[in-house]
Amino acid sequence: MRAGPRNLITDVAGLRVGNAADGRLKSGVTILTGDAPFAASVHVMGGAPGTRDTDLLAPDKLVPAVDALVLSGGSAFGLAACDGVMAGLAAAGRGFAVGAARVPIVPGAIVFDLLNGGDKAWDDNPYPALGRAALEAAEQDFAIGTHGAGTGALTGWLKGGLGSASAILDSGHTVGALVVVNALGSPTVGETRHFWAAPWELDDEFGGIGLPDRFPAATEPTPGKRLAEATTIAIVATDAALDKAGLQRLATAAHDGMARALVPSHTPFDGDLIFAVSTGARPLDPATDPYGLGHAAASCMARAIARGVHAARPADRDLQPCWSSLSS
Amino acid sequence: MRAGPRNLITDVAGLRVGNAADGRLKSGVTILTGDAPFAASVHVMGGAPGTRDTDLLAPDKLVPAVDALVLSGGSAFGLAACDGVMAGLAAAGRGFAVGAARVPIVPGAIVFDLLNGGDKAWDDNPYPALGRAALEAAEQDFAIGTHGAGTGALTGWLKGGLGSASAILDSGHTVGALVVVNALGSPTVGETRHFWAAPWELDDEFGGIGLPDRFPAATEPTPGKRLAEATTIAIVATDAALDKAGLQRLATAAHDGMARALVPSHTPFDGDLIFAVSTGARPLDPATDPYGLGHAAASCMARAIARGVHAARPADRDLQPCWSSLSS
Repeated sequence: MRAGPRNLITDVAGLRVGNAADGRLKSGVTILTGDAPFAASVHVMGGAPGTRDTDLLAPDKLVPAVDALVLSGGSAFGLAACDGVMAGLAAAGRGFAVGAARVPIVPGAIVFDLLNGGDKAWDDNPYPALGRAALEAAEQDFAIGTHGAGTGALTGWLKGGLGSASAILDSGHTVGALVVVNALGSPTVGETRHFWAAPWELDDEFGGIGLPDRFPAATEPTPGKRLAEATTIAIVATDAALDKAGLQRLATAAHDGMARALVPSHTPFDGDLIFAVSTGARPLDPATDPYGLGHAAASCMARAIARGVHAARPADRDLQPCWSSLSS
Repeated sequence: MRAGPRNLITDVAGLRVGNAADGRLKSGVTILTGDAPFAASVHVMGGAPGTRDTDLLAPDKLVPAVDALVLSGGSAFGLAACDGVMAGLAAAGRGFAVGAARVPIVPGAIVFDLLNGGDKAWDDNPYPALGRAALEAAEQDFAIGTHGAGTGALTGWLKGGLGSASAILDSGHTVGALVVVNALGSPTVGETRHFWAAPWELDDEFGGIGLPDRFPAATEPTPGKRLAEATTIAIVATDAALDKAGLQRLATAAHDGMARALVPSHTPFDGDLIFAVSTGARPLDPATDPYGLGHAAASCMARAIARGVHAARPADRDLQPCWSSLSS
């Protein structure tokens, strides 16, 4: 397993990511779209999720593929970002055909960032416009850290952010992850610079300093922000031709990466969830390949979480320090 | 957080565990019961589960509490262990009252250990008798390692086993875990003696040797036994007065301990699942306590997994080495 050329989810050929943000709002939107609709599923493990149009992702439901996925700030207000993405896709003639009508299929999920120092006194919900701008910005290359839906993200004690990572397996399949790190838990071991994700790090991609010599095993973590002001939402993607049921398994396995990179994770007050998508471009052996694909998804997820925090940069009215500002 | 006096799930007052095994069969049964029925839920994350009477554990279902939980070897044949446990409980007058009838409520789950070197050529299914014997053996003190349902357990490369651990929180609540470690993945970092669970270790409870200096981040794990010959099943318990819905959240959080202690975990070929139970003896603040309880459940789960492998001992016709037999 090695990182892909961009070390981004867009190393899965045919996928594009767009960011849009408002610095005064301290929030934003990140969208994933593709050259063509792609199969998708989701696995929700947190206790406080905020989602839109996720029921249709179940393996028994009709719609076989989605046009885009939305990760947004704004708590439930941010679900309106899907409106803007749908409008942009409709203008481009994209969508699930029902007779002469076309309905762009755009599931989404949100993080809570309403109490992060940003100006939230809007007259009109800003998220539809941010969603459309993110769609229009979608490219293979995109910025991580304090960008898109990661703009206003916080964690237990360090500023969060937008993260991504990729892996190319020995089988030739590519796996990638995209994540908005806004957890109640901590991405580092206690208040050190050592990322929990260190065992999975490739090529010093988030500092290369490994794990500490000691662990506070007996310490009970206390949330560094108020309960419910949290949630980590993510997407894993692959070119392996998994169907919706196989993608639900992949999303489940990817949650292990969240568990390994954030402590604690999957709390009753986080809405932690992971979408899994496939372009279907590369055949797989369904009897054996899902084992390695699941491990790669968990590994990419852990790495993407650390990379998002590692890439965060200071901004006005920040409530938490950046990893990059900590003294080594 | 500190380990309880026994460092076993039975540090949760009112709970008892019983083991029964057959050395020639290389399999067995472990049961959890209590002085009184206890609330229970379950969260299934693996792709190949084997369960019995788990649907009634959903928060909306009628039955409020169970009389016992069964962890068994024998793949789906082992679900018959519940028959023996039910018979023993019925003889003792235990069970959910429906008019004049009493129905002992005994959900169960199994691991696959049919190809582990044991003699599986039985005429009559041996698991009902093993279940009843395990019930009759139930005590506060019980053995871990090569005992009960852990008798024939294997992992990716080391012999598995039955593990348990406990924690007493600063809040005064007790949390415990009980697990049959039979994973496809590895409990150690590559083929070293270093347990993945090391960051959570208390009091050198599984050797105290910590993590290695380097990690094989780019290595793709390969299963050391055939796909589907696996599954890790577990129970977390607490005296905190969580209801069935709260216990479902606790079981979900506890899966993070599996993710941290076994690599890979939650594969399509493992039936990984965790029951969560509460005696209800100790009040809790539902607005805050579940955060720490979930972390403690994940921590106990990781520790119990390592302790089960650490305590495994050699037996005739073993297919894998024991951790205790590795040279240091």
